[in-house]
Amino acid sequence: MARQERAHRTRWAILEAAARLFDELGYEATTIGMVIERTEITRGGLYFHFTSKEELARAVLDEAVTSTGLVPHPFKVQEWVDLGLLLAHRMPMEPILSAAVRLSVDPRARRLFGTRWPDWVEVGSGLLAEAKERGELLPHVDPEEVARLCVGAWTGVQIVTDVLRPARLPQEVSDLYAMLLPAVVSPGVLAKLDLTVHRAPRLLAEAREAAGTGASGPVPAGDTGAPGARGDGDGAADDAC
Amino acid sequence: MARQERAHRTRWAILEAAARLFDELGYEATTIGMVIERTEITRGGLYFHFTSKEELARAVLDEAVTSTGLVPHPFKVQEWVDLGLLLAHRMPMEPILSAAVRLSVDPRARRLFGTRWPDWVEVGSGLLAEAKERGELLPHVDPEEVARLCVGAWTGVQIVTDVLRPARLPQEVSDLYAMLLPAVVSPGVLAKLDLTVHRAPRLLAEAREAAGTGASGPVPAGDTGAPGARGDGDGAADDAC
Repeated sequence: MARQERAHRTRWAILEAAARLFDELGYEATTIGMVIERTEITRGGLYFHFTSKEELARAVLDEAVTSTGLVPHPFKVQEWVDLGLLLAHRMPMEPILSAAVRLSVDPRARRLFGTRWPDWVEVGSGLLAEAKERGELLPHVDPEEVARLCVGAWTGVQIVTDVLRPARLPQEVSDLYAMLLPAVVSPGVLAKLDLTVHRAPRLLAEAREAAGTGASGPVPAGDTGAPGARGDGDGAADDAC
Repeated sequence: MARQERAHRTRWAILEAAARLFDELGYEATTIGMVIERTEITRGGLYFHFTSKEELARAVLDEAVTSTGLVPHPFKVQEWVDLGLLLAHRMPMEPILSAAVRLSVDPRARRLFGTRWPDWVEVGSGLLAEAKERGELLPHVDPEEVARLCVGAWTGVQIVTDVLRPARLPQEVSDLYAMLLPAVVSPGVLAKLDLTVHRAPRLLAEAREAAGTGASGPVPAGDTGAPGARGDGDGAADDAC
């Protein structure tokens, strides 16, 4: 394994371990010592990648900035829905994503690191504004308002589902869109959208094939360059709608 | 002032102080000492009412179980909406309500005290099932599913609004219902519902008049005995939808 790739894997292992701890214990209760114990690397090894717990938390939030699987679609409103479906599908499998929600919801962590909600509202507003220009939305719809309410609704459904129906997040988010979209999308377009739980895994499988990694490899992290995607560090993906 | 009333006021002052601290600092960081400092009562005075921080948290959650202002309405679906509108209106003014959301969202506090979300889903499901029987809802609607998704959506909109648009909660919740209900309620009924921000303050003013306290007194805490209301301690009101 090339040295650079080994370093990348170590960094990722540290981040995942930190994310699991943030998710289980919260930001305050997590210590660097616990991360070291979980990853079984030396203190020096960890400090080579991250110099503090704050830096770990910021990196978790940055890595949760992801639109992996998103591809251009004839309907801009489908792309907006896809962002939410993809995150709902990936979140149960990726501790970095659920840790990012937990850090955003925790008021103390929020004071330190802020949230990515404004960025998500911006991404959603942009896609919905384009959708509206193309006549995909009902005439009265305010793209920014819908994007903002949906960031809230998606986040709350994720939190409550985690308590009431663990492992059902993709279905709940799919049902949420089915309930929201009749008041947002033109009927003719609505009939052609795919809001089902099958869409996200199919998009991810297609992204894997396009990347030449086949079905066995992990989904590559980072942007696909799809419309609405944000670059590392200036976007947000702790939730979406 | 009668001795009993004085004791009641002291208990309430302690609870409000504890709620403000839970809301500002979280459950872990709050101490009994801080509550004493805020209320300016003696340690003995506090322990007369509450023997531990855990008991304070449980009491906050219990007191947030409230349907104050709710009255019977010809449309059961209006009563269900009213629960959410009333809480959105009251929450910015009542620290006990916002503290209850914070305790429910905090995974560590949740492990200790659970959440009231299942109770809210039950209350909502009951009202929506009645609404469906009366033909107020669209035929395909599953009352339990709508109630569950709305508890999530309401909670998330509250959390995100607190960050993005402080003091706008009643309007955001009103907009949330306007977006959700076209896929839930029969068009003829939908046209007759009041989803505006004006409804909750009017209901509360009417409840005050009915209680003979006029506009000057505080809204009496506790149940009105309205349909869908829960008795103290066995219901839930940290959120609703």
